[in-house]
Amino acid sequence: MERFSCEVVAVGTELLLGQIVDTNSSWIGEQLALNGVDSYFQTKVGDNPERIKRVLELALDRSDFVIVCGGLGPTQDDLTRDVIAEVMGVELVTDDGLVERISAIFGNRGREMPLNNLRQAQVPIGAEALSVMPGTAPGLKAPIKGKTLYAVPGVPWEMKQMVLEEILPDIRTKAGISSIIRSKTLRTWGDSESGLAEKLGNEIERLDRVGGATIAFLASGIEGLKVRLTVKGDTEPEVEEALNAEAEIVASILGDEVIFSYDDQTIEEVILDLCREKGLTLGIAESLTGGLIGSRLTSVPGASEIFKGSIVAYSTDVKNSILEVPDIPSVSQEAAEAMATGACKALNADVGLAVTGEAGPEPLEEEVGRVWMATSVGGVVKSSTVKWPFDRERIRQFTTITVLNALRLRLEKET
Amino acid sequence: MERFSCEVVAVGTELLLGQIVDTNSSWIGEQLALNGVDSYFQTKVGDNPERIKRVLELALDRSDFVIVCGGLGPTQDDLTRDVIAEVMGVELVTDDGLVERISAIFGNRGREMPLNNLRQAQVPIGAEALSVMPGTAPGLKAPIKGKTLYAVPGVPWEMKQMVLEEILPDIRTKAGISSIIRSKTLRTWGDSESGLAEKLGNEIERLDRVGGATIAFLASGIEGLKVRLTVKGDTEPEVEEALNAEAEIVASILGDEVIFSYDDQTIEEVILDLCREKGLTLGIAESLTGGLIGSRLTSVPGASEIFKGSIVAYSTDVKNSILEVPDIPSVSQEAAEAMATGACKALNADVGLAVTGEAGPEPLEEEVGRVWMATSVGGVVKSSTVKWPFDRERIRQFTTITVLNALRLRLEKET
Repeated sequence: MERFSCEVVAVGTELLLGQIVDTNSSWIGEQLALNGVDSYFQTKVGDNPERIKRVLELALDRSDFVIVCGGLGPTQDDLTRDVIAEVMGVELVTDDGLVERISAIFGNRGREMPLNNLRQAQVPIGAEALSVMPGTAPGLKAPIKGKTLYAVPGVPWEMKQMVLEEILPDIRTKAGISSIIRSKTLRTWGDSESGLAEKLGNEIERLDRVGGATIAFLASGIEGLKVRLTVKGDTEPEVEEALNAEAEIVASILGDEVIFSYDDQTIEEVILDLCREKGLTLGIAESLTGGLIGSRLTSVPGASEIFKGSIVAYSTDVKNSILEVPDIPSVSQEAAEAMATGACKALNADVGLAVTGEAGPEPLEEEVGRVWMATSVGGVVKSSTVKWPFDRERIRQFTTITVLNALRLRLEKET
Repeated sequence: MERFSCEVVAVGTELLLGQIVDTNSSWIGEQLALNGVDSYFQTKVGDNPERIKRVLELALDRSDFVIVCGGLGPTQDDLTRDVIAEVMGVELVTDDGLVERISAIFGNRGREMPLNNLRQAQVPIGAEALSVMPGTAPGLKAPIKGKTLYAVPGVPWEMKQMVLEEILPDIRTKAGISSIIRSKTLRTWGDSESGLAEKLGNEIERLDRVGGATIAFLASGIEGLKVRLTVKGDTEPEVEEALNAEAEIVASILGDEVIFSYDDQTIEEVILDLCREKGLTLGIAESLTGGLIGSRLTSVPGASEIFKGSIVAYSTDVKNSILEVPDIPSVSQEAAEAMATGACKALNADVGLAVTGEAGPEPLEEEVGRVWMATSVGGVVKSSTVKWPFDRERIRQFTTITVLNALRLRLEKET
């Protein structure tokens, strides 16, 4: 089968200057690969019309599709629209429908549309605005010399929605791609990347020989250590079956202790699901994480059914008064356990967890990186400690996933 | 003065597939800018010799210097050396000095040098190995058609040391550059990007005419809307003076209400500094942000001197019991104000802030995006409301920076 290629061009002087890292191109590259579209080149170019034009012409010359990202905003240095018109050899005209759509968005926010934003309603003759428009910047789709150029804003969430909902389906249709590539991500915690690689060594070698699937590891901080399985095939059921079969093999090797989710759920989603299933409410007491655990839990829609709240006790007197922690060192097993009990009581929750520790950079009571964690399940409190060799932010992140994973294991075994 | 340009090429299929984000090019771009070297293009290309060759030839054609990053390792798919030799039209020969240097490194680590690593001692005739070699992969410096191509490994710490210690000084010498470029970032909140652009329109036009400085905007979510000033000059004092002068002009146009920091500090740092300066402690009551505000504040080292804690009251009974909010709708002006008062009392804090709202996706009491925010300063509670047209995560993020900015304005004016 003929292979089609799509090139990504990111526009913005701030990308060249290193003020922003170009994660958009990486994300688009990943999506193209998952859809069976080759991507051979990705280019960053500054806000200069002549150079943007050279890059777009080159891209159209050597690739079947081009996605250009950025430079669609309302200001003078947003040049992508103008350059596309120039590459097409046409004028820009104001699209009345777009004017209406953009004005409506500002109207809904109770704000007057700045005149600048009218620039965004301009479309090169022969091109069209993308129908998916999550923000105030419209995307464009332009046929040029038998090829297709798509323009999307540089704002990641706007870009992603346009690529997923409109551009990728369009490319697949045009390229006649029917084969599909799907991934399944198992998330793990408690073993290192090299540890997982060693355990899965034989299986990876077997797949190298027989093909059908690939396994990749991705250390993702607070999101866990991901094990990604990828399979290519002709139909959804075929691919799904192959993915599930491979997931079972991997699960049988790694075990349920290490794997906390089989469908890329976060540990927060897993905890909330477990509590929901068992009819339990959850309360938290946080010291060194300062609200991070609560924030992560409440980023999951529907958390309010389970999650009662969190006492962020960043000072000793709050630990004493609200959590009823006795007058003992704040970073200690006793304090963590008293906080977990106190959280259940103060928040009227069935299940509790607590963390206290030294995030640094300066040690206050204990060595930097020392953390105590406690969980309360069925009124029984258990605790553990760890000394992280990390900086402040990673100490907070690794503590969050570690204590949530400890709670998961207890909820699975003890309730 | 003549301007010189340097192009960056990153080699690696994993970059195109989005398995690794190309932070190397961004970093090199930043260093080039700080050294007064223009960089107009950055390209990512996969591990394919023919395509790497095309990209390098194009780069040498349109730029004065080229830094190619990656593909210098010991394995078969490390192709950069071979392609450079091909672009130069010469053979690779083994450099005995390099063999000795690489063997010595392995010897020092008490390991035998794998035969593969001999590939890394090969140098195109007419090119030379960089003298800076932090790891086992040598960098290269190749004169091609009156221009210079540098090759560095993709391992960031190896690459960085080579660029800083050898390549940048070499480029500056060859280009006769003595000038420097520096930036200053003002952070703002409360006005849109197009609103700021409109207000600064005349000043941007003036700078376009007279030169000396540039102004760029960068919408950065919870980090605020950044205004970056960039100035080029011959000496550090001269550049610093010009930056400060431009910052004063911008400040006089935008005003202190909008600008919350002049040196790229976060709103959290600004709040903690204000409280520290005025000897005030801070307590928080969060509902829809679920701990995010506390988490942001405690990500700043030293927060514990100011920040007493946060009551994450995600359920009505916690609002009632700990914050003493009366039995009224949770998403309301009265609830937000009672929460701010309750936070000060429960946490024994001088200053309080509170947020409550509907983060969605399903509305519970109010329309999704409706948020009430309150601040308590000197015992006086003030509140405001907004209806965000965003998704859950951005509702939480925009609420966080908005309420912190409201507190900043009150702390600046009222204390």
